[in-house]
Amino acid sequence: MTTIGEIGERQLIEDFKSFLRPEGRIGPGDDAAVIGKDMVVTTDIVSFDRHMPAGMSYEQFGWYAAAVNFSDLAAMGARPMGITAALALPPTLDVQAAYDIMSGIDQCAEFCGTGVVGGDTKPGPGIVAGTAMGTLDGRAPMLRSGAKPGDIVAVTGPLGGPAAGFEAIDKGIDCPDAKERLYMPIPRVTEGIVLAESGIVSSCMDLSDGLGTALNTICESSKVGIDIEYDFIPREPFVEEISEKTGIPMEKLLLGWGGEYELLFTADPNRLRKLYDEDLEFSIIGIVNDSGRPELVRDGKRSIIGNGEY
Amino acid sequence: MTTIGEIGERQLIEDFKSFLRPEGRIGPGDDAAVIGKDMVVTTDIVSFDRHMPAGMSYEQFGWYAAAVNFSDLAAMGARPMGITAALALPPTLDVQAAYDIMSGIDQCAEFCGTGVVGGDTKPGPGIVAGTAMGTLDGRAPMLRSGAKPGDIVAVTGPLGGPAAGFEAIDKGIDCPDAKERLYMPIPRVTEGIVLAESGIVSSCMDLSDGLGTALNTICESSKVGIDIEYDFIPREPFVEEISEKTGIPMEKLLLGWGGEYELLFTADPNRLRKLYDEDLEFSIIGIVNDSGRPELVRDGKRSIIGNGEY
Repeated sequence: MTTIGEIGERQLIEDFKSFLRPEGRIGPGDDAAVIGKDMVVTTDIVSFDRHMPAGMSYEQFGWYAAAVNFSDLAAMGARPMGITAALALPPTLDVQAAYDIMSGIDQCAEFCGTGVVGGDTKPGPGIVAGTAMGTLDGRAPMLRSGAKPGDIVAVTGPLGGPAAGFEAIDKGIDCPDAKERLYMPIPRVTEGIVLAESGIVSSCMDLSDGLGTALNTICESSKVGIDIEYDFIPREPFVEEISEKTGIPMEKLLLGWGGEYELLFTADPNRLRKLYDEDLEFSIIGIVNDSGRPELVRDGKRSIIGNGEY
Repeated sequence: MTTIGEIGERQLIEDFKSFLRPEGRIGPGDDAAVIGKDMVVTTDIVSFDRHMPAGMSYEQFGWYAAAVNFSDLAAMGARPMGITAALALPPTLDVQAAYDIMSGIDQCAEFCGTGVVGGDTKPGPGIVAGTAMGTLDGRAPMLRSGAKPGDIVAVTGPLGGPAAGFEAIDKGIDCPDAKERLYMPIPRVTEGIVLAESGIVSSCMDLSDGLGTALNTICESSKVGIDIEYDFIPREPFVEEISEKTGIPMEKLLLGWGGEYELLFTADPNRLRKLYDEDLEFSIIGIVNDSGRPELVRDGKRSIIGNGEY
């Protein structure tokens, strides 16, 4: 017998992919599945013991459970149409905590222009399985494959916030802004729709597993390489402060950590006006090439970007 | 502080309904939600400790986890388009068990004409949260409200099987057929589509909480009463045998138990030809009236039908 613990969770998810069937055009290996003509669906589990850092309220936990799902829709360019929430909560838990979790899910859904459309609850250790549904409204879905040499690589906002927040809590550093980024990630739904609508995006995914892992995934899925200019990576103002106080290198906070919910995308450099015209905020951080792997260029020196540890 | 255990799971689900928003035409209170034009979605959690009776294989547990969700789609008349599975499994579990669960989900999805389109896994006590999506293909969804005095009340197949199966296992009676009904419920997807397509069905729901509870729900949602003729209730041949051997009244096995996945529906008695023409198997078991509650007529005597204990 081999246990799940022995092969590890990532390997199990990898193995499960053989069971996934593309009912429509898009198969497994992207942030969400496209089924039928226009429907996009994704599911993610979060749990008290893994995703509830010290100081996070139950309401924020609910927001988080919804946000990770909406972020997957955003990465495909889908407009959210609803979320279902299956809760497995300890019978000893205060019911107010259960209401707070549902309220957090509801608030995040409202922020994303939709609502909670179904749910179920059973006794359990504190788990929320969210499933978000959306529609492409006729847009082509953005995939992880499709990046081409010469495309620019960009992100929709500053990075390092959640990593800094986690370390601030861990090391007892008072930094409310950093904690806020960790507790209440903003799914980039509007940005995802604008990106997909533009027609100039060649690949896209969210940064939930961190920038390093995402860059490796895009390179693998698109069969390309990527050069990232370290100085171009936008960062939260407090990330440097946390790095200095904790001694954790900036590079690790910016690239090696997950829980980030900005979108990473590649796009045709000659048609970027389409995005500027929409007032979309984004930062160009690198360029696609044919090297076959992501590399970081810092002070003129190159290093290979590995998967994050998240 | 009031704990979830103190108010109970059913009350918590009831309380959660205030968070549900009808994104489309159909609000909470039915088997599934209708969102957008044609999309139907439902979510259900099952767990090792609640839904895995002695002798059930991991593959059957997976089938069961999918079947309960597809049954909810069937009750609305939706055609399945996919299912997502979020698994929270013990790290000490044999990986083969995890593959078996996914295989069971996959087989049930295939039986229902669709496939697994997404999934996630995290450590947990043995929980599967399934979310099934479907489309109405332009059909009007069947709801729990809509039954009218004079309509016939019918079910799509024989009842009592899962109850008999549970009791057979509990009392150590050898009855493979009964166990099969408990372990591998058949979601009535084809039947649900035919019923919705016919245009003569005034209300419908599945029997997952048992016939007694379903009849009470239809009466409440449709503001009607129902008379059920006891002798008309179709039953599995072995139910009487299990009743005799265990001393549990037939009535209880037929009405008071859940885990049943036939559909209960009401329909216009003057247009039943529409269903006969489709070769749909069903049994008429009673008639809708305006008494405001479900009653059982047995040997000319009447009794009020209560909610099941399931």
